[in-house]
Amino acid sequence: LQTKLPKVGTTIFTVMSQLAAEHGAVNLGQGFPDFDAPARLVDALAKAMRDGHNQYAPMSGIPALREAIAAKTERCYGYRPDVDAEITVTSGGSEAIFDAVHAVVRPGEEVIVLDPCYDCYEPAIELAGGVAVHVPLDPQTFAPDWDLIRRAITPKTRMLMINSPHNPSGATLGADDIAQLTALLRGTDILLLSDEVYEHIVFDGARHESVLRYPELRERAFVISSFGKTYHCTGWKVGYCVAPPALSAEFRKVHQYNTFCTFAPAQYAFAEMIRDEPEHYLELGAFYQPMRDRFQEQLLTTRFKPLPVPGGYFQLVDYSAVSDLDDAEFCRWLAVEHGVAAIPLSPFYGTPPKGQRLVRLCFAKSEATRDAAIERLRKL
Amino acid sequence: LQTKLPKVGTTIFTVMSQLAAEHGAVNLGQGFPDFDAPARLVDALAKAMRDGHNQYAPMSGIPALREAIAAKTERCYGYRPDVDAEITVTSGGSEAIFDAVHAVVRPGEEVIVLDPCYDCYEPAIELAGGVAVHVPLDPQTFAPDWDLIRRAITPKTRMLMINSPHNPSGATLGADDIAQLTALLRGTDILLLSDEVYEHIVFDGARHESVLRYPELRERAFVISSFGKTYHCTGWKVGYCVAPPALSAEFRKVHQYNTFCTFAPAQYAFAEMIRDEPEHYLELGAFYQPMRDRFQEQLLTTRFKPLPVPGGYFQLVDYSAVSDLDDAEFCRWLAVEHGVAAIPLSPFYGTPPKGQRLVRLCFAKSEATRDAAIERLRKL
Ligand SMILES: CSCCC(=O)C(=O)O
Ligand SMILES: CSCCC(=O)C(=O)O
Repeated sequence: LQTKLPKVGTTIFTVMSQLAAEHGAVNLGQGFPDFDAPARLVDALAKAMRDGHNQYAPMSGIPALREAIAAKTERCYGYRPDVDAEITVTSGGSEAIFDAVHAVVRPGEEVIVLDPCYDCYEPAIELAGGVAVHVPLDPQTFAPDWDLIRRAITPKTRMLMINSPHNPSGATLGADDIAQLTALLRGTDILLLSDEVYEHIVFDGARHESVLRYPELRERAFVISSFGKTYHCTGWKVGYCVAPPALSAEFRKVHQYNTFCTFAPAQYAFAEMIRDEPEHYLELGAFYQPMRDRFQEQLLTTRFKPLPVPGGYFQLVDYSAVSDLDDAEFCRWLAVEHGVAAIPLSPFYGTPPKGQRLVRLCFAKSEATRDAAIERLRKL
Repeated sequence: LQTKLPKVGTTIFTVMSQLAAEHGAVNLGQGFPDFDAPARLVDALAKAMRDGHNQYAPMSGIPALREAIAAKTERCYGYRPDVDAEITVTSGGSEAIFDAVHAVVRPGEEVIVLDPCYDCYEPAIELAGGVAVHVPLDPQTFAPDWDLIRRAITPKTRMLMINSPHNPSGATLGADDIAQLTALLRGTDILLLSDEVYEHIVFDGARHESVLRYPELRERAFVISSFGKTYHCTGWKVGYCVAPPALSAEFRKVHQYNTFCTFAPAQYAFAEMIRDEPEHYLELGAFYQPMRDRFQEQLLTTRFKPLPVPGGYFQLVDYSAVSDLDDAEFCRWLAVEHGVAAIPLSPFYGTPPKGQRLVRLCFAKSEATRDAAIERLRKL
């Protein structure tokens, strides 16, 4: 049996979580919060089941949830997507990315991805028969180099994938990036996939530059989000895609024959939660910011050097003062010998840059978990 | 924007459910039961959430659920799949079908499907770049014609897809079919996808001829099932794939980058339910058989002619004594003018047979629902 995906193994997240479990390491690897889903959300889900909402949901999502997403989008980004034609609920952000790629990418077409990028982008592109064209972000700031991206465009370029706040770095796109992106795409028929699953975790009073704010961008974009990060329930796998009607129609053709619809009771729960408790998502940055701040302070007492984190719940650290191992070896050593599970950056690259000494730590953790990790890192 | 799936529109199930809602029709169209998920299952799911099982599940499913699936498979089919290497939990049977096809079908390769077949097969094949080769089942009995299938095999044939109990007809494969299938595949490297989502709904004391019973077949097969049909929760979208280690490895490469994992709390609930209450699935045929029997008796008081139903929860009826419309027009007319939503068979075919006068009715409904439908059908 010859594999269709020769480059693909077990994800680094699974590998590190298993290593953490085996060695009793504090797990700051795989990105999931220590905090639990809000009781109100859990109660609403239980009620939806008891109310008998256990059969197929509509393929595009229950109307109440699409309504809530439209209202949230309008409130946050000043644009109200059409409830019927522009919003599709999916089984997580990853299904949405997979569906968007399969909806429009044909064999031989190119999709530009900005490295480092989340590890599901390239396999989705390859399974659709496309080719991932890797363009590096700035190795210090993780900002896009728009000229470099422009030079990667060919007649075969079908799509550009962006991600803000960015996993793994936490970098965010600013208004200037949006302007350059807009100029770059103007006059082309290149589509945009904007992965915004960390949209509600931005810091220091910055605003999230959602592609949905910008008519010229959103008319060619699949904008993808997810509730897992926002509602502390990464295991519920409910996400969504906002795209103009023509793109949504193609998106839904894939979704319809992939998962068809998403766990129905959760849709009722999210509809209620989003509608009735907007403070939750509006205050999520404020919830995480003190954790980021304290974690960075604590890191300054170790030999690991924290990089700036404008958004998301990951902290990159430079470990070059600690070790000269490459990042994969370093993470294994750190988990096995020093009891802290981190994520190396190399799996996020088409071709990992040589000599980069960065690993990712998740700070969406209880104070006790973070303190335990810091204590172990301090010994190094 | 040129579509990648020119043949695909809204599924017939969605179309008919919408029509039913608009016209107050009794909905015997889309296949979902009137019965609710067992209270024990609902309670177990609520408990799993309250116990905090709300973050990512392992990519292949939680161990307890894979363990329960292995034990159920052994009990039912005398074969215990390997918990680590052969079972993968998915977001419904449809994701499992989509993943299996994407795991092994390459551009230009052929997949044999037996018409009529469930409407997600062909789009999944096309999105993987493959070609669906349609071979008709017998138009009266819906049995496979193994010689016809043999003649459809070419050097490009990658996979054969079978489905028992069969949607839409309810036909089941017998031991003789299995013998012929085994002979057909022997010596080839054609893979098998066996869609067994109605595995626990078989009637008249027959046994379900799961591919998992047969070493020569299962060594080349993706066997797919789902809990939606078995536990009256089609909207929960939890299914699974059993396949030998090498095929499961490829399957997981797709699953991992498609949905990654499935709604975690439901996995805990199904693990408990399957393990502790095997009577539920063991007695599901006995639960549905009286409904089938009574529905068929009632149909004999109308001008609709019921066909035999060995399994599943769908009843095919011949309406040629009632109307000469083609099946799609007939279903529209039946819903709009006579208040009963049914499913036409033509969307289940590559090329619908001319002059076929059959529609599908779902009898997984309360007595009141069935009686109301019959009353309306009697007027015709
Ligand atoms: C799907 S497991 C990976 C979770 C995640 O988003 C991350 O750790 O980056
Ligand atoms: C996914 S909606 C279709 C439900 C079903 O299995 C059927 O009606 O055949």
